Amino acid sequence: MSQSPSSLDALKNLTASLYGKDFLLTWDKSAEELELVLLVAETLRDLYRQNISVRCFDTGLAISNFRDQSTRTRFSFASASNLLGLAVQDLDEAKSQIAHGETVRETANMISFLTEVIGIRDDMFLGAGHTYMLEVAEALDDGFKNGVLAQRPALVNLQCDIDHPTQSMADLMWLKEYFGGLDNLRGKKLAMTWAYSPSYGKPLSVPQGIIGLMTRFGMDVHLAHPENYNLIPDVLEVGQTNAAASGGSFTHSHDMAAAFKDADIVYPKSWAPYHVMEKRTDLLRAKDQNGLKDLERACLEENAQYKDWECTEDRMATTKDGKALYMHCLPADITGVSCQAGEVADSVFERYRLETYKEAGAKPFIIAAMMLTSRFEQPAALLQQLANAETPRKNG
Amino acid sequence: MSQSPSSLDALKNLTASLYGKDFLLTWDKSAEELELVLLVAETLRDLYRQNISVRCFDTGLAISNFRDQSTRTRFSFASASNLLGLAVQDLDEAKSQIAHGETVRETANMISFLTEVIGIRDDMFLGAGHTYMLEVAEALDDGFKNGVLAQRPALVNLQCDIDHPTQSMADLMWLKEYFGGLDNLRGKKLAMTWAYSPSYGKPLSVPQGIIGLMTRFGMDVHLAHPENYNLIPDVLEVGQTNAAASGGSFTHSHDMAAAFKDADIVYPKSWAPYHVMEKRTDLLRAKDQNGLKDLERACLEENAQYKDWECTEDRMATTKDGKALYMHCLPADITGVSCQAGEVADSVFERYRLETYKEAGAKPFIIAAMMLTSRFEQPAALLQQLANAETPRKNG
Amino acid sequence: MSQSPSSLDALKNLTASLYGKDFLLTWDKSAEELELVLLVAETLRDLYRQNISVRCFDTGLAISNFRDQSTRTRFSFASASNLLGLAVQDLDEAKSQIAHGETVRETANMISFLTEVIGIRDDMFLGAGHTYMLEVAEALDDGFKNGVLAQRPALVNLQCDIDHPTQSMADLMWLKEYFGGLDNLRGKKLAMTWAYSPSYGKPLSVPQGIIGLMTRFGMDVHLAHPENYNLIPDVLEVGQTNAAASGGSFTHSHDMAAAFKDADIVYPKSWAPYHVMEKRTDLLRAKDQNGLKDLERACLEENAQYKDWECTEDRMATTKDGKALYMHCLPADITGVSCQAGEVADSVFERYRLETYKEAGAKPFIIAAMMLTSRFEQPAALLQQLANAETPRKNG
Repeated sequence: MSQSPSSLDALKNLTASLYGKDFLLTWDKSAEELELVLLVAETLRDLYRQNISVRCFDTGLAISNFRDQSTRTRFSFASASNLLGLAVQDLDEAKSQIAHGETVRETANMISFLTEVIGIRDDMFLGAGHTYMLEVAEALDDGFKNGVLAQRPALVNLQCDIDHPTQSMADLMWLKEYFGGLDNLRGKKLAMTWAYSPSYGKPLSVPQGIIGLMTRFGMDVHLAHPENYNLIPDVLEVGQTNAAASGGSFTHSHDMAAAFKDADIVYPKSWAPYHVMEKRTDLLRAKDQNGLKDLERACLEENAQYKDWECTEDRMATTKDGKALYMHCLPADITGVSCQAGEVADSVFERYRLETYKEAGAKPFIIAAMMLTSRFEQPAALLQQLANAETPRKNG
Repeated sequence: MSQSPSSLDALKNLTASLYGKDFLLTWDKSAEELELVLLVAETLRDLYRQNISVRCFDTGLAISNFRDQSTRTRFSFASASNLLGLAVQDLDEAKSQIAHGETVRETANMISFLTEVIGIRDDMFLGAGHTYMLEVAEALDDGFKNGVLAQRPALVNLQCDIDHPTQSMADLMWLKEYFGGLDNLRGKKLAMTWAYSPSYGKPLSVPQGIIGLMTRFGMDVHLAHPENYNLIPDVLEVGQTNAAASGGSFTHSHDMAAAFKDADIVYPKSWAPYHVMEKRTDLLRAKDQNGLKDLERACLEENAQYKDWECTEDRMATTKDGKALYMHCLPADITGVSCQAGEVADSVFERYRLETYKEAGAKPFIIAAMMLTSRFEQPAALLQQLANAETPRKNG
Repeated sequence: MSQSPSSLDALKNLTASLYGKDFLLTWDKSAEELELVLLVAETLRDLYRQNISVRCFDTGLAISNFRDQSTRTRFSFASASNLLGLAVQDLDEAKSQIAHGETVRETANMISFLTEVIGIRDDMFLGAGHTYMLEVAEALDDGFKNGVLAQRPALVNLQCDIDHPTQSMADLMWLKEYFGGLDNLRGKKLAMTWAYSPSYGKPLSVPQGIIGLMTRFGMDVHLAHPENYNLIPDVLEVGQTNAAASGGSFTHSHDMAAAFKDADIVYPKSWAPYHVMEKRTDLLRAKDQNGLKDLERACLEENAQYKDWECTEDRMATTKDGKALYMHCLPADITGVSCQAGEVADSVFERYRLETYKEAGAKPFIIAAMMLTSRFEQPAALLQQLANAETPRKNG
């Protein structure tokens, strides 16, 4: 007989529900709702490792709409969908009639007649991604309420201009595993810092997502970046409010050394300044290729002033016992490997390489948990039923 | 226990069979064969809404070959395939070796070794789409007869140069639902009219499909378009013959007002004139980009003479009790929404918006019914078996 | 009750195992391991034809990575994956972040968290394809050993610069069927010859794969090509060694007539000379478009000297009783059909057309067998269990 995972027992004690709700921003969710997602994800992973099928749909579609390139999230979404029994259908806007002036409201309904989940990545245009997702959500509500759709598909944010909840929740699941429980995160210092990269235009959603989520669990979150490299102001406020409520702290500086000093966790990662992303959005909308090239040049020149914002061995030595956990959403710009000078020294990355892979490995289960908690009213009962059935995922 | 749908009972009284047959043109099918498809589609929808799985394939491929852009039909085909248990594999000719001079006969066999259904959209070249499908059908017959293929995949026309049967049959299913039965369509007036659009080159298959199908059920079908905007002559004859046989009528005029007068249903939609599509086909084949631009310019100029061919509130007021049902295959060119001046006034479209979405919602089930009736010898018995099994489509 | 296939009985007598092993080159495998794949493929085909489901995964991903165009292999891989219950996810490098400098080691792990099989085609760059696959394999080993991956996905070579094992093994399965057993291949003469084609740059992997595999079974393999059209030298040695060990022979000449003389089987096919492929690889890497055009022109001129290397009726008349089996991996360049002058005369191809289709039809089952033997420890027991269960693949 299979062993019922302890996460499943913990799940039964929760009263929070995400049934019928979309997952767009972590700070829209209560702490218990976030814990619900974590526990469902852990249970799914445990059952998967025991070769127990967690397929809970016999048929049904999961639609992905990637408005930007993706490997990790694309495969995580495909894995999560398949794990639950859904077939992925990609909405490739280049191959569709959407360019013909079709409304978001219409498309959202047209693709949803037999659809259980829609995942969207839209992170290129500042001020656009989250707004677009809200518009899709409203259209789905409208279609479901009026009998156009037989079911209301769950919407999962696969990265927008504001947040990247599948990344930050996977990171949280990894931290919980690494440190042995959410309670153990209390009082831990996490340095979310900018880092130099020879590319530009990287989205803000990862640092914003980390700040918005990790301040919920009593951690001491230190955000550090060069003066010009601001994030969206609203999210900084979210960080402040969260830290105050959770008994942690939120520090904001322009000092990488201060951030790393005695840190338990470091998350050094490049991003483009908020004002650059705003200008880039305008240029992208105007399809101004020369303007974009000029902006890139200016931005890379500015970046180049901060080549010392690298996660080196020296910097790592200043962290707690010289052994802070290095994190990254991948792919990292590794000095001497993927670029001449980048976010992280080769030796540092190599020491934590497998840890970053394990961090990434949480994402398929987090996405599956977001899908499952939105589409099933009683996740604990469903998972217990699946655990009891012991249908092998792989025969023989 | 689940309620056995009334459509399933009705199905048991039919003797028609589509087993082993392709679905290319509605006018190749008997009235009872069309009713078979409708009843199977309705049964599938009813069971779906009762959360009963209608998966009848454990494994198998459904291949889609879209030679033109598509959203609605692409997702309908994916939904239908998945509903029955088939995995969709897209034949993307750009990624294949077909350009190397491979014959249609060969490709048709190469993709079909474990394939149950092939859906093709090919509506760009006048005189080509239907011909291509016949060639594929013949190749599949040849391969099956000679032991190359263990099963003969069903071929479903997802839009050709002549007909668009998944659209027109979905429209018929919607009309049957809206008016409460096929018998209630007898004597209803349907206005299939051209309408102004600021684009050109829209295919003829929707109006042709509507004329070819709706004249089968005793309706008074009125086709109206500006003088130059003819359809394929053969299809007009089909309309005449059908109307005579079904006890309805088929009127052909150049007068939108006459068509709308006392209509129960209006279907205003743009299309390119037959002679333009012929010329366009020649230019596309010759890859004459300048010629295509000149043709577009001339055609848009001609279009612009008929901006009053719009489905306005004034025109709607002249229909039966001012309340004709507005239909469209979507996306519509809506004045002030998707273009400055288009096929339909914003207020008219908005009033019927949800109805057009419901119209579109029939398509996945129609396509599934076309697949199922072609691949299963006893659809009624199969559906009864699925209804009795009550396997939940979605657990818990 | 279903009939247990004789291939399943034969399977039970084998002790060879491919469990946990990748399938990259046939000459890395023992003769019994190759027979294992053949027998599993035959059993899968027999059960398929009896409408018995061989689905052995409830969920799981199969990833395809095509670095070159493909129809046959793409659909064969999709069919094989679906047959066993896996969902295909295509790794389209254009849509991924891999161009950003991500390492092979990282990508291999990122796509594999819930993945059972990875199939790779990489045949454009001489010296690169096989090397790349080894790198992926090592990365998967590393990830699995270190707890990043819960399972080690099987790697299947869908064509590299050296070998094309899914093609050659499908060819072998077809020859076994055609001649009534592997033993009957002993002493048969197979002519693997170059043939004229109006295109250039065709990969070497098919002739190399045929030489490397068919010399294992006591056949008399005669390789013939014009002087300049050499294959990779190492593979010629493999052919010599194999022939010596199996009691067959391996002849290498520049004489098509000698090769065809009394042949039981002919496999006339174009390929580019080894030294051209080497130069082409350099030019592709340098993205030297002009250099590539010059090379193509020079190469086509060289090709044109050998237009008489065509599989004509006259040449066929010199084979054993004038009735050698014609083979081709398809698509063939057919004189008067797909080109003015090509590899094979229209009448010859037409006479063997259905045979070449049947040859191709073995590939989905060969790929499925490679997947199954790598991922399941006891293939015979599993297949017996599936045969006994008699789950219908298609209901009703």
